[in-house]
Amino acid sequence: MGYKAPLGDMQFVLQHWLGVERAWRDLPAYAEVDLALAGQVLEEAARFAGEVLAPLNSAGDRQGCRLLEGEVLTPDGFPAAYRAYVDGGWPALACAVEQGGQGLPQVLDAALLEMLYASNHAWAMYTGIAHGAYLCLKTHASEALQQRWLPGIVSGETLPTMCLTEPQAGSDVGLLRCRAEPLADGSYAVSGNKLFISGGEHDLSRDILHLVLARLPDAPAGSRGVSLLLVPKWLDDGTRNAVHCDGLEHKLGIRGSATCALRFEGARGWLVGEAHGGLAAMFVMMNSARLHVGLQGLGHAEAAWQCAREYALERRQMRAPRRPTSVPATAADPISLHPAMRRSLLELRVRTEGMRALGYWAAHWLDIAAESVEGGQRDKATKLAALLTPIIKASFTDQGFTLASKALQVFGGYGYTAEFPIEQTLRDSRIALIYEGSNEIQANDLLLRKVLGDGGEAFALLLGELQAEAASGAPFADALGETCEALGALLPEVRAFSAADDEYPYRAAGDFLSLCAMALLAFAWARSARCVMALAEDDPLRVEKLESAGFCFDYLMPDFDRHLAAVRAARAPLPFIA
Amino acid sequence: MGYKAPLGDMQFVLQHWLGVERAWRDLPAYAEVDLALAGQVLEEAARFAGEVLAPLNSAGDRQGCRLLEGEVLTPDGFPAAYRAYVDGGWPALACAVEQGGQGLPQVLDAALLEMLYASNHAWAMYTGIAHGAYLCLKTHASEALQQRWLPGIVSGETLPTMCLTEPQAGSDVGLLRCRAEPLADGSYAVSGNKLFISGGEHDLSRDILHLVLARLPDAPAGSRGVSLLLVPKWLDDGTRNAVHCDGLEHKLGIRGSATCALRFEGARGWLVGEAHGGLAAMFVMMNSARLHVGLQGLGHAEAAWQCAREYALERRQMRAPRRPTSVPATAADPISLHPAMRRSLLELRVRTEGMRALGYWAAHWLDIAAESVEGGQRDKATKLAALLTPIIKASFTDQGFTLASKALQVFGGYGYTAEFPIEQTLRDSRIALIYEGSNEIQANDLLLRKVLGDGGEAFALLLGELQAEAASGAPFADALGETCEALGALLPEVRAFSAADDEYPYRAAGDFLSLCAMALLAFAWARSARCVMALAEDDPLRVEKLESAGFCFDYLMPDFDRHLAAVRAARAPLPFIA
Repeated sequence: MGYKAPLGDMQFVLQHWLGVERAWRDLPAYAEVDLALAGQVLEEAARFAGEVLAPLNSAGDRQGCRLLEGEVLTPDGFPAAYRAYVDGGWPALACAVEQGGQGLPQVLDAALLEMLYASNHAWAMYTGIAHGAYLCLKTHASEALQQRWLPGIVSGETLPTMCLTEPQAGSDVGLLRCRAEPLADGSYAVSGNKLFISGGEHDLSRDILHLVLARLPDAPAGSRGVSLLLVPKWLDDGTRNAVHCDGLEHKLGIRGSATCALRFEGARGWLVGEAHGGLAAMFVMMNSARLHVGLQGLGHAEAAWQCAREYALERRQMRAPRRPTSVPATAADPISLHPAMRRSLLELRVRTEGMRALGYWAAHWLDIAAESVEGGQRDKATKLAALLTPIIKASFTDQGFTLASKALQVFGGYGYTAEFPIEQTLRDSRIALIYEGSNEIQANDLLLRKVLGDGGEAFALLLGELQAEAASGAPFADALGETCEALGALLPEVRAFSAADDEYPYRAAGDFLSLCAMALLAFAWARSARCVMALAEDDPLRVEKLESAGFCFDYLMPDFDRHLAAVRAARAPLPFIA
Repeated sequence: MGYKAPLGDMQFVLQHWLGVERAWRDLPAYAEVDLALAGQVLEEAARFAGEVLAPLNSAGDRQGCRLLEGEVLTPDGFPAAYRAYVDGGWPALACAVEQGGQGLPQVLDAALLEMLYASNHAWAMYTGIAHGAYLCLKTHASEALQQRWLPGIVSGETLPTMCLTEPQAGSDVGLLRCRAEPLADGSYAVSGNKLFISGGEHDLSRDILHLVLARLPDAPAGSRGVSLLLVPKWLDDGTRNAVHCDGLEHKLGIRGSATCALRFEGARGWLVGEAHGGLAAMFVMMNSARLHVGLQGLGHAEAAWQCAREYALERRQMRAPRRPTSVPATAADPISLHPAMRRSLLELRVRTEGMRALGYWAAHWLDIAAESVEGGQRDKATKLAALLTPIIKASFTDQGFTLASKALQVFGGYGYTAEFPIEQTLRDSRIALIYEGSNEIQANDLLLRKVLGDGGEAFALLLGELQAEAASGAPFADALGETCEALGALLPEVRAFSAADDEYPYRAAGDFLSLCAMALLAFAWARSARCVMALAEDDPLRVEKLESAGFCFDYLMPDFDRHLAAVRAARAPLPFIA
């Protein structure tokens, strides 16, 4: 059961759903990029993911990482795969040409990441933070630091980490205690303990560049007193910096990823951006990372869908109550014909392809935000991307886990064994609901900051996009219109409830996020249906996409109404737990 | 984070929710049992689960089972715990006095099982099938076989297994190929391969008694041609029977449980019940097993709730938007005060306690079915227990897994590590959705056989129970009344849709089961609320139960409406997967 990248659907999203070719023509940075080039890039990426990474996935999980005298050995094959990744130029994909990058759109990076996460989540943890670190340094670091470090990140010679969490400071960054003392030469001595640091130590790249949140001596308390420091594993004089890996976590999943406890003992570091401005700098990295974590959910869902489909088409048990005319009756039908399995398989397909369209859509908005020549477009794109980020992070990772469990169920008892890859997907997928801001944190970010916080401006932009699609007159457009109406009518209510009870939005945030995710899924499928209407009536793509859209509106959208009711129901008091 | 059996809530269910004392007085077999005796039994069971089993749970998971030259070694401490279990007389708890049992009600056995599964699911797999096998033999085996085997099962000297699954025959028992050839002395030679046999080989008891489904030479094809045979590990002449353990599964969870591939090579066996009547005989065992698997879901939910609550009360992150007046403001509040965590914790508490009431209710109906002197009561109780079984098996196990995931989320990154017990609970809980008839099989059993199959008679009995509670005038009774009305109005629709489209009930079955489960949860909490109204207004039990009931109706019942809409939406066609 090997992973094969869904190139056909990726191309469908780029070409039809997003219409990237026309969009890229309006963005000078990407004026030279076309679908043919994009197709080549994706094919190469698919080969790397399918032929290099996927074969290491299960073995890497079984072997895990080892810590030997402070050095981390990753699973067999991981370092070689990383050399192939670097040689292929993949770290540079969406980096600017001035920095040695390939200058390709982020939407292609999103497709690459989907493949990496689908084929080997644990391996992709080592590279996953690199683009965020690149953006963070490009935006906040001094010219000198950029010159020193960006080329290595772009080439892949240096792998960055993100060092936020401490034993007592998880969701609450303000509680962190790590300290940075200024030295005479303008650098800092960084001391303290960091926990759960992915790729904190490994044998993939020689150098590792830690981006560390710490407090300067004069720092105010809380999250306004944290600064961002850059702490390399090796100093320029060739000596080892005082960063020690004291332990590796034994985890439910992503066992090939080294999750490190790091001890900084006066390690030399350099300040990135303003003193006490660490959170703003780190957020550049984190926002990119949150979208990427969402793409992990998409990758897991795709991996789950592929193996469940393959198994269900082969495994025969009992007669199905109905079969296509093309299938002869036998003593036992493929389980793919049984209605309960069809429901699960269709849900896997429809949610996965829906996530793909939406995830790439968000990445495409990031491209517009970065490269559009029109200020209005940049502003709109920035707001939409910021609004979509928590929805994608939380709802994609939720779905990645839930769909992995649905796929496991298709396998019956076999799915519970290590003979098939799905139990690993279930384990690997679970972390994504937690890290880079738990899904509960995402929900608060969405409702309190991004929807209520800006007076509803960004939300109105999003609703406008959905309404425009609902006005297309295509099949399912009317159904999407009803969804938009319900969503639009809800917001003033939510605002009023929040004004009357300042705890209300915290109680409603989770369902509000899920509600938005369901509205987006409806939007994705209404647009997909519209896109295929130009194809011949018997074109298999048209038939399949219309069937999927029908399934979305008939079988999945009752979830929208549930969350709608639940957002209103959250006015009820919520008892305390003793 | 040790497991402590929730004796207080168990007593609440027995005493107030079920009112067992009055009920037992009407059942001659239990006329001597009272709450004081029940309390002593539960306290002893709690000690065994908490002090003997729980400490072996995590170590057993890490160590797993080993297969050495055909012999299975279970994790350290498992055999000794079994000896303590046998010495405590636990296998005999709900067995008849004539057979050497203690003759206690099955509802107490349900409470015992909840504790065993909550404290160590893997260990409890070895003993879990014993009571079902006891019932099966008592109902179907010849007098001679009963005399030979029942005493050993009751004393615990012999542990039974259930050998149904073969590599090609999982949900579809009709595909099984195992053969039984008659021998001159009236016994049979059993040959074939069985897969996924829990406790197929182990070192807990000297003897193991396999209950094997196989085909006699003249058997008709399909499930009507299977017979049940009893195949002991040891023959009475002291020689080993020809049953070989060829392998152990490497599983996602319950790793301390030996899941065996068994090879029968002309092993001597004895026919239980009629030739070709194996399915009916096995169903006695399976129905008991299905209720027990439901109790596994309850056990996992309880274990998850206990550790999540404990962690949430200790872990401090950020200030909560609101806190009880008794809690002083500090830099960071216990996360139990944060609304998103409160929602998760309340859902854990409310669903867990709701399951407990409902699970014990089903066991109590089994007691009435077996022991009532009134034929009408026995008949009603039999029908209700049969109807409740698939709902409990599927919805409790679904909840066990979902709630374990919710609890894991409370722990944040720590929950993903082996430092805390919750990741094991997540893994262990996942199997219960699959075995003893997958949850999809349960849903079909419920809607097609037990609701539509009997003309709605059993369903009307269940609805009558709910309506009687809704007529009580207690708080939440009206809300339950609305639920009943919606459920009652749905059934004629479901019947009409099914008549018009014979695939419809298969498409709707999953949501129909979930709908019934939500209605039962509402019933459980409406009754709990009524039960505490007699207590003083400031009695902590009354306050907490009323808060829980409010949470159920405000925050959870939107799920009922979703499944209601989804049952209707399943009229839509469901495409085939290619």
